[in-house]
Amino acid sequence: MTEIRELTVGVLGGTGAQGKGLAIRWAKAGVKVVIGSRSAERAQLAAKEITETAGGEVTGTDNVECAASSDIVLVAVPWDGHSDLLASLRDQLAGKIVIDCVNPLGFDKQGPFALPVPEGSAAQQAEALLPESKVTAAFHHVSAVLLADLSIPQVDMDVLVLGDDREATDTVRELAELVPGFRGVYGGRLRNAHQVEAFTANLIAINRRYKTHAGLKITGV
Amino acid sequence: MTEIRELTVGVLGGTGAQGKGLAIRWAKAGVKVVIGSRSAERAQLAAKEITETAGGEVTGTDNVECAASSDIVLVAVPWDGHSDLLASLRDQLAGKIVIDCVNPLGFDKQGPFALPVPEGSAAQQAEALLPESKVTAAFHHVSAVLLADLSIPQVDMDVLVLGDDREATDTVRELAELVPGFRGVYGGRLRNAHQVEAFTANLIAINRRYKTHAGLKITGV
Repeated sequence: MTEIRELTVGVLGGTGAQGKGLAIRWAKAGVKVVIGSRSAERAQLAAKEITETAGGEVTGTDNVECAASSDIVLVAVPWDGHSDLLASLRDQLAGKIVIDCVNPLGFDKQGPFALPVPEGSAAQQAEALLPESKVTAAFHHVSAVLLADLSIPQVDMDVLVLGDDREATDTVRELAELVPGFRGVYGGRLRNAHQVEAFTANLIAINRRYKTHAGLKITGV
Repeated sequence: MTEIRELTVGVLGGTGAQGKGLAIRWAKAGVKVVIGSRSAERAQLAAKEITETAGGEVTGTDNVECAASSDIVLVAVPWDGHSDLLASLRDQLAGKIVIDCVNPLGFDKQGPFALPVPEGSAAQQAEALLPESKVTAAFHHVSAVLLADLSIPQVDMDVLVLGDDREATDTVRELAELVPGFRGVYGGRLRNAHQVEAFTANLIAINRRYKTHAGLKITGV
């Protein structure tokens, strides 16, 4: 297997909180990161901000170039634009490990809830749109606030990594464990991604009730 | 609020592994437990077995009498018989806290997966069938094997308790915490129960991969 630190990690939607939070931690761990955004300028600004915070080698470009120039790609875009973006990047993402961390959620007066997804989950939608990629699902529950705050040296939680390709899930688990405190735990096949995505609604409800940034740990592993 | 140890806890489907495991721990904690089953004889046998293992005050009867004679009722029946049983117990369960721990799962060659539920989740189906009860959802992820083995003094995991009635979820959290090692954590409204039930499929996948009895903990709470 390729040494994980030699891979270039692309972050589609890397100007958003979740993508940027992970990019900060990976940059700090010495991984080469490419921030992608609809606007190359905004991506470059985010990249500059990240290197100022965390050091490392971070560049910014548009989503197409980000996908094309990376070895492994995190999809961290809003659910709204998920299918259109991935459909447009099929060629650039062919043969690569794609990590989907998108949570299809709605909000109303009673708080967060899971949106229905025709394919079953965001990750399965990615799989349907990217038949030549190795699609995994991970990083759904990470707190962007905790990740972005480097005064917190480690974020103790488990990252559930789902997928049907063993080597791909192993690589994503390794990538997770570059973040101090993270443990990558295999979480099942991609067809069981819906509940992991939707569980983010429960974590948001927990955050509101307990005034915290909740995460998960798996006991017994 | 009523002192939790003074309540009688009914366990519908208490001859099954999950119900029996919890009954053992509650009996050991000094809670009065009524085991319910389709067959009163089998329920009485299970009750005898539980008191021989754990001591305490445990009786067995049919599901109707179990529901009628208990203050708070755990629904631990197979998903197959869930709706028919609850529809038949509407009167006996009126005004009571009902705890649904049922996981609608299927299994095939690729392992476990979540079954679609027209109402959204087993817990929401219970809510629809029991309009006069306070329906909560909890204890989905507890390992029956660990619970039944009293040589394991405590089972360290969090029990997510979902529901729309604050007092009911608080009571169920207290009931959870009678089991040494369990912590009751509010997990959101009932409409977010599906993913908690379905997540049991992921835990089973984790158990298979890591040869363990996995559970959950919520960090930051």
